[in-house]
Amino acid sequence: MNAPSDLPRTLPPPMLDRLRQRFGERCSTAAAVREQHGRGESVYDARPPEAVVFCESTDEVAAVVREAAAHAVPVIPFGVGSSLEGHLLAVQGGVSIDLSRMNRIVRVNAEDLTVTVEAGVTREQLNREIKDTGLFFPIDPGANASLGGMAATRASGTNAVRYGTMKDNVLGLTVVTADGEVIRTGTRARKSSAGYDLTRLFVGSEGTLGVMTEVTLKLYPLPEAVSAAVCFFPTIDAAVRTTIEIIQLGVPIARCELLDANAIRAVNRHSQLGLREAPMLLMEFHGSEAGVAEQAETVQSLAKEHGGADFEWARTPEARTRLWKARHESYFAALQMRPGCRCQSSDTCVPISRLAEAIDESVADAEASRIPYWIVGHVGDGNFHLSYLMDPSDAAECAQVEALNVQMVQRALRLEGTCTGEHGIGLHKMPYLLDEAGPGAVAMMRNIKRALDPHNIMNPGKIFAL
Amino acid sequence: MNAPSDLPRTLPPPMLDRLRQRFGERCSTAAAVREQHGRGESVYDARPPEAVVFCESTDEVAAVVREAAAHAVPVIPFGVGSSLEGHLLAVQGGVSIDLSRMNRIVRVNAEDLTVTVEAGVTREQLNREIKDTGLFFPIDPGANASLGGMAATRASGTNAVRYGTMKDNVLGLTVVTADGEVIRTGTRARKSSAGYDLTRLFVGSEGTLGVMTEVTLKLYPLPEAVSAAVCFFPTIDAAVRTTIEIIQLGVPIARCELLDANAIRAVNRHSQLGLREAPMLLMEFHGSEAGVAEQAETVQSLAKEHGGADFEWARTPEARTRLWKARHESYFAALQMRPGCRCQSSDTCVPISRLAEAIDESVADAEASRIPYWIVGHVGDGNFHLSYLMDPSDAAECAQVEALNVQMVQRALRLEGTCTGEHGIGLHKMPYLLDEAGPGAVAMMRNIKRALDPHNIMNPGKIFAL
Repeated sequence: MNAPSDLPRTLPPPMLDRLRQRFGERCSTAAAVREQHGRGESVYDARPPEAVVFCESTDEVAAVVREAAAHAVPVIPFGVGSSLEGHLLAVQGGVSIDLSRMNRIVRVNAEDLTVTVEAGVTREQLNREIKDTGLFFPIDPGANASLGGMAATRASGTNAVRYGTMKDNVLGLTVVTADGEVIRTGTRARKSSAGYDLTRLFVGSEGTLGVMTEVTLKLYPLPEAVSAAVCFFPTIDAAVRTTIEIIQLGVPIARCELLDANAIRAVNRHSQLGLREAPMLLMEFHGSEAGVAEQAETVQSLAKEHGGADFEWARTPEARTRLWKARHESYFAALQMRPGCRCQSSDTCVPISRLAEAIDESVADAEASRIPYWIVGHVGDGNFHLSYLMDPSDAAECAQVEALNVQMVQRALRLEGTCTGEHGIGLHKMPYLLDEAGPGAVAMMRNIKRALDPHNIMNPGKIFAL
Repeated sequence: MNAPSDLPRTLPPPMLDRLRQRFGERCSTAAAVREQHGRGESVYDARPPEAVVFCESTDEVAAVVREAAAHAVPVIPFGVGSSLEGHLLAVQGGVSIDLSRMNRIVRVNAEDLTVTVEAGVTREQLNREIKDTGLFFPIDPGANASLGGMAATRASGTNAVRYGTMKDNVLGLTVVTADGEVIRTGTRARKSSAGYDLTRLFVGSEGTLGVMTEVTLKLYPLPEAVSAAVCFFPTIDAAVRTTIEIIQLGVPIARCELLDANAIRAVNRHSQLGLREAPMLLMEFHGSEAGVAEQAETVQSLAKEHGGADFEWARTPEARTRLWKARHESYFAALQMRPGCRCQSSDTCVPISRLAEAIDESVADAEASRIPYWIVGHVGDGNFHLSYLMDPSDAAECAQVEALNVQMVQRALRLEGTCTGEHGIGLHKMPYLLDEAGPGAVAMMRNIKRALDPHNIMNPGKIFAL
């Protein structure tokens, strides 16, 4: 699928020369490198940047941005490339700033439950490196994304129902602004009323306001007890209605994930799990031994009322890891179900009481379409992904999938939800942001963008047209 | 104390005429009304607005703002007047928009744990009106503030250690922008990645970017069990070190409040409580019966290690209400300890591991000053208030208190904390915001302000000088 077209702004040769002078081989114009940096996991064909600079420090990022600002050339921050909505495409040309070598843990303050990392650190790396502190960082969007990228899209994922999203877990940022200055937002205090919340403005800004180079995060004590269970249901609706009651009762469940039979079929084949191919909730409980037992008992009895089966427990860390790994690989597992296909994944989120309606109607549409699909959902948040496996060479099918996606988004908005729970707007959701927020609010976003990035060099062409 | 002086912009008589025509007696220029709207609970002498308009709907607010925009006249939103840092003073003249008659609960969605209220609804009114739903709104800054005002200062208070601050609990807003348009931010979904987080930009913006007229909030199921206890300690330091360990262990305590002996003396006298006049933690635990017992047991054993006494329990709702009422009235109770005095209350917040240092050094300074003071603190968040009772006619004493306040703020910044945990910047903390955030970040805030309020009419002269 082609991305919306914008006028590219060309990188002037003297600027490229200066970047090469400073960065040597870390400034690349090789086709393969550019191609890899001009895509993500979206449905769009790549739109490569003109150059890729591998930065190793905030100062280096600032130097690239100052060059870009001087020539009004776009810059696009790049973490690991797991974006789903076209954030990384160089639709107006320019330079990709690859942050993956900024992968140092700057400072762990275990006694304050905080950590500062460079933006290129991935969530798995972070949790590996802090394992000895007895703390962990819970936000887990599935992909092993960079923490800068997760902040940029306001990511969340499986643990958000208990621990919140990136919005709730970023304490402060180091940001390179559009004129190449370096600012700090936030402090290490857990709360503050000191002026505008610049941290929250950058979280979710998708690289359009500045480049985040360091992120200070909240950490959490590893729970005394963790247990994971799966529970099978006769219908998706039964699983969703159980979830609604879990949330309404205030059970502090740590993870509450829905997988439909199609998703399970895919992960069974990919990860040899041998799970029943029926709608399933994959749940995790965190707390004291007694607390976890109590939560599980409450949830089991709610599930029973909706025809849910007995919980099947993953009692060892290894068994849990196996289940979650399978869940996280469901995207790639599903892709393998239809060789050569591309996947388009919706990302709506609705108030919890409307979730059954949102999912049931979407499933009916999907079944009627006869296009292969599967569902996974962070259903405790009212967030689910219905993903179609489409043949990219079949224009009619692609158009049909896009129409189904629009229908799902419009349904979510009608149910007072949002067009994206966690993937961001990128290129793909721009028209729906307007539907959701209204022209006045989007005009305000544009005003902010113009004020902070007057030459429109920070990841231009994303979130809204200027 | 005089507020910093700004050039007042005068309300043109034709504008006043039109406001009177539309609002009749709801547009007041009576001295007493203006005086009441030109102050708060700050140390400053009143700076009355030129007129006060009592609005009853978003449309009415928009009409006033459109008039003000046409004449570049300041508007200052007013809830109940409980601001502590001079937010309400009409330092540049203009119109106060009183929102206290916008006090309708617009819509309760108990099934989604959300509620939408007009900005003038107070937190006590909200909890009274939703009592039958089995839900509650936890954020409790002490004062019975309006929810619009609480959003404007990013308020928090006693329950924040478990439930977060206004930042975490506002889902969406209706806002009248500086040109008198009405926008909506957010949806009723629990999370979203749709564009810039305008909700979080307005939360904490202290009326400088627009007037919030409706607020959509998260609600929580009333816990199955609630129990409150007090625990006395030999020293403030011992109470604080116990708190640090509670947080580091991840105990989900709902409230963890410090009162020093001076504060207890004041509340004893004001509320006839008969509490021991020694450093005390006032704690509340929420959860299941077993969960609450388990939390309390953990905390009791931590307290013991620091010389804490046995918990004294407030087992009935009445006993709990009595304790919390006393805590909430501590401000007024303390004022009565020195007739004719005015109170200056600091509001710093530091990373939890630095709290003992922050408090111990501040206490040493306070003791050396010989000026009456008292301490209360939302210590679970690393946030405390050291308040001086000063004689407003004694210029030397006022200057000394201000110097002590500066010292406390600088200490908090040195300890990687913030100059305000929950009271906001207002007029009083403007220089410290610059110290905390740095000139680059404050310049960015100014840019945003100019972009959203080009005529500088929204509560001008607050947070930063333009």
